[in-house]
Amino acid sequence: MAAPSKTNPSKARRSSDVAQWDLETDVAIVGFGGAGGCAAIEAADAGADVRIFELASASGGSTALSSAEIYMGGSGGTRVQKATGFEDDTEDMYQFMMACAGPQADAEKIRLYCERSVEHFNWLVDIGVPFKDSFHEERAIMCLTDDGLLYTGNEKAWPFSEQAKPCPRGHNLYIEGDNGGPLFMKIVTENVEKRERITVHYETRALTLIQNDAGEIEGIVIRENQKELNVRARKGVILCAGGFVMNREMVAKYAPKLTMGTEPIGNPGDTGSGIQMGMSVGGAAINMHEGFISLPFYPPASMTFGIAINDKGQRFINEDVYHGRLGDFVLRQPSERIYMILTVEQYGDYESVSYLGAPVAGTGDTVEELEQELGLRAGSLVHTLATYNEDCAAGQDSLFHKAPEWLQAIEPPLVALDLTPGRGAFVPHFTLGGLDTLPTGEVVNLQRETIPGLYAAGRTACGIVRRAEGYASGMSVGDATFSGRLAGLQAAKREA
Amino acid sequence: MAAPSKTNPSKARRSSDVAQWDLETDVAIVGFGGAGGCAAIEAADAGADVRIFELASASGGSTALSSAEIYMGGSGGTRVQKATGFEDDTEDMYQFMMACAGPQADAEKIRLYCERSVEHFNWLVDIGVPFKDSFHEERAIMCLTDDGLLYTGNEKAWPFSEQAKPCPRGHNLYIEGDNGGPLFMKIVTENVEKRERITVHYETRALTLIQNDAGEIEGIVIRENQKELNVRARKGVILCAGGFVMNREMVAKYAPKLTMGTEPIGNPGDTGSGIQMGMSVGGAAINMHEGFISLPFYPPASMTFGIAINDKGQRFINEDVYHGRLGDFVLRQPSERIYMILTVEQYGDYESVSYLGAPVAGTGDTVEELEQELGLRAGSLVHTLATYNEDCAAGQDSLFHKAPEWLQAIEPPLVALDLTPGRGAFVPHFTLGGLDTLPTGEVVNLQRETIPGLYAAGRTACGIVRRAEGYASGMSVGDATFSGRLAGLQAAKREA
Repeated sequence: MAAPSKTNPSKARRSSDVAQWDLETDVAIVGFGGAGGCAAIEAADAGADVRIFELASASGGSTALSSAEIYMGGSGGTRVQKATGFEDDTEDMYQFMMACAGPQADAEKIRLYCERSVEHFNWLVDIGVPFKDSFHEERAIMCLTDDGLLYTGNEKAWPFSEQAKPCPRGHNLYIEGDNGGPLFMKIVTENVEKRERITVHYETRALTLIQNDAGEIEGIVIRENQKELNVRARKGVILCAGGFVMNREMVAKYAPKLTMGTEPIGNPGDTGSGIQMGMSVGGAAINMHEGFISLPFYPPASMTFGIAINDKGQRFINEDVYHGRLGDFVLRQPSERIYMILTVEQYGDYESVSYLGAPVAGTGDTVEELEQELGLRAGSLVHTLATYNEDCAAGQDSLFHKAPEWLQAIEPPLVALDLTPGRGAFVPHFTLGGLDTLPTGEVVNLQRETIPGLYAAGRTACGIVRRAEGYASGMSVGDATFSGRLAGLQAAKREA
Repeated sequence: MAAPSKTNPSKARRSSDVAQWDLETDVAIVGFGGAGGCAAIEAADAGADVRIFELASASGGSTALSSAEIYMGGSGGTRVQKATGFEDDTEDMYQFMMACAGPQADAEKIRLYCERSVEHFNWLVDIGVPFKDSFHEERAIMCLTDDGLLYTGNEKAWPFSEQAKPCPRGHNLYIEGDNGGPLFMKIVTENVEKRERITVHYETRALTLIQNDAGEIEGIVIRENQKELNVRARKGVILCAGGFVMNREMVAKYAPKLTMGTEPIGNPGDTGSGIQMGMSVGGAAINMHEGFISLPFYPPASMTFGIAINDKGQRFINEDVYHGRLGDFVLRQPSERIYMILTVEQYGDYESVSYLGAPVAGTGDTVEELEQELGLRAGSLVHTLATYNEDCAAGQDSLFHKAPEWLQAIEPPLVALDLTPGRGAFVPHFTLGGLDTLPTGEVVNLQRETIPGLYAAGRTACGIVRRAEGYASGMSVGDATFSGRLAGLQAAKREA
């Protein structure tokens, strides 16, 4: 690992202060995760010389740490969707993703992502990423089989189910267990290594951008083997340096809601240095307050039969949602405690298969006993369960619209899990803010004017994913790889 | 009014591009509202020559549009607090304001604000701001009498009531009706005008900062009488140009929650130009996603006896909170409709005194009838009211901790008001994000290093006020005037 630097990524170096260029390339890429790797491949294939500067001793980034599910569909369906009997309309995918991103959606980016998603699938297959033509039926946070396709978001949950025809779009690599991320980055890395136009500099820290008086980005300062080097990038610099989840000062400043009992996940390089470099030359950082928040309450899938309640004994969500949506709603609840209430049967093999690790908060042979144990107002949970069970009998969740398949009466004996962030359950988060870019990856300022020669992709940019409440697994790696490709191509095409 | 400019406030001019200085001063101030006016007075009194550049044809800014309540206390109490029998401990004020600002609190700023609040009161009195030594008992959004003191926030509402000893700190100017803002700005303006060191340029637009190669701010480009002029500011530039609530593109980008059914309030100059100028030279803009959201459900105060419910018939807040806290909680509710349920008696003279203008959504001679009329699930409101009325009889709100004085059984005949933002009720918002500054008003970058010669105050800076859920009337004008003073003094002291 390169030594930590005192050099400030938030201050660009002026070209006039560069005494000499120590290295030259067409395209300089900061970070070798999913975004940086795909950017390099596309830029090289378009004829550009590329140098990747990676802080760590190996490629990987957060993509390698992830399950590397990839969110793809539309245009009638990917090969896997079609083979497993799903026809996916681009418009459905677009409507769904727009609803996911909410008022801060970037419609242009989402449109392009949906329209080109099948092409992206084919490109991934071409570089060697394997997908099995099989569908994983079970509700899961990640697919532990080698199945190629599963539902990974809120597609089937209200209100999304009413906004677009549900279709599974989470593509899972053809490998058993939670091993998609390492396999994916192995394939990307092999593709990078076999391209002669690409040079990878590991253990190298990108310090700051170099900008000329006209505002164009001309290169980047790096530190390699204890030496600071000025790298000229004739066509541009692509920032693929991840998010800022590991920079706790930045998180406190920009995304304070992520400091409330949840834990950061990411790789140590997610220090926000890429975002800061972009900001240093006028790039607008947007959506900085938002994060992904997960409350991974399933597996087992049977947890979905339970109900989530606040400390008033009230339900507040349809529990068949994606775990990130529950996490977001939990943070928004005016409540000091959040519980999940289940029958002993629904609790099932929770202890052996759960990622959540939420402690048991109470049990009861009667509802009244559980109320008392949880310190709930007498009658509150009694009422909530009576209403819920009545709805289950009628086959319709009158209040929160949980899908009928997940409606099952909740009768004692009961178990309550404590879902409250900060009380033992694993509630991770990562950031969703970054540099504003055009769909091409060009970094823009507040007026959406481009900064010539500067690109960003993956989590350093603010892409298609904007909110926990509308997140789906596979959207991040999908966005990172797709936006990386676009940025790589755009930079390679730029007149030097 | 000056003509709109195409010049981009987000791009600073380099000193080397300045052919000549057209005007010179020690301190240049952008904006003549409460912050700019107080900054000018303090800077001039410290011996600096000052020029204020104001877009409009007169002073005022958003302060003149407001009620100009000023949030002050601590140190045993202001003259008005003491005279009306309130002893106010600095630590109580500090704890309260920290709870208000939440995880994004700037502890250092709040500490200073509380410690110097009585001094600030005395300074205001010295420049001629009149306060009557009387206490206004009634719960009110603004004081329509000339009383000098009232509760203007969540001090007496749970959970704040448990976090610090409640004390009224809203200081209201000695004038009948909602006329505090114009009076306050009249006094500030007279103080400015009588100081020979201060020159005010009305109908003058600040275009962009001027920065030298060392990063120092040397001046500002303005346009006056159709001419662009370079103004040298030997000691510094203070940005007091308001927030960005009138820049709907910026609001959509940074504070998307403010686009969800609520209406902007502010003055036309709140275009974010001051914040953009600061960002253009590396100033960090923080808390940009937050806004004040008001749901002014009282007066009449009797509305506080009502209960707010969501479309599941659930309560979600103690209704004795400040109206901004209700607004925030409403936006966080997973609900398509929000209602306030009242008896006909509690509804009282709502129609003649309300600012809210929420339409009547339904009435009922029985609870069941109202449930049906509102489209609520049968039994939902019945249960909520039964619980609430039981709590009223017991004198304790077991779920939401509304103070006993506001607990009164709600029995038919009933009225329901539709509080849903976007459905007729007046639900205004303004922004709470701005440039990060030291308590002195010095603008800082992401690393909290100062940008020499640049200051910000009022809404252009991110001050003591950070969230709707912890807002109190008087905090904005309090912050604007206090932060303006500090910035003016700091700039005046700077070695030219």
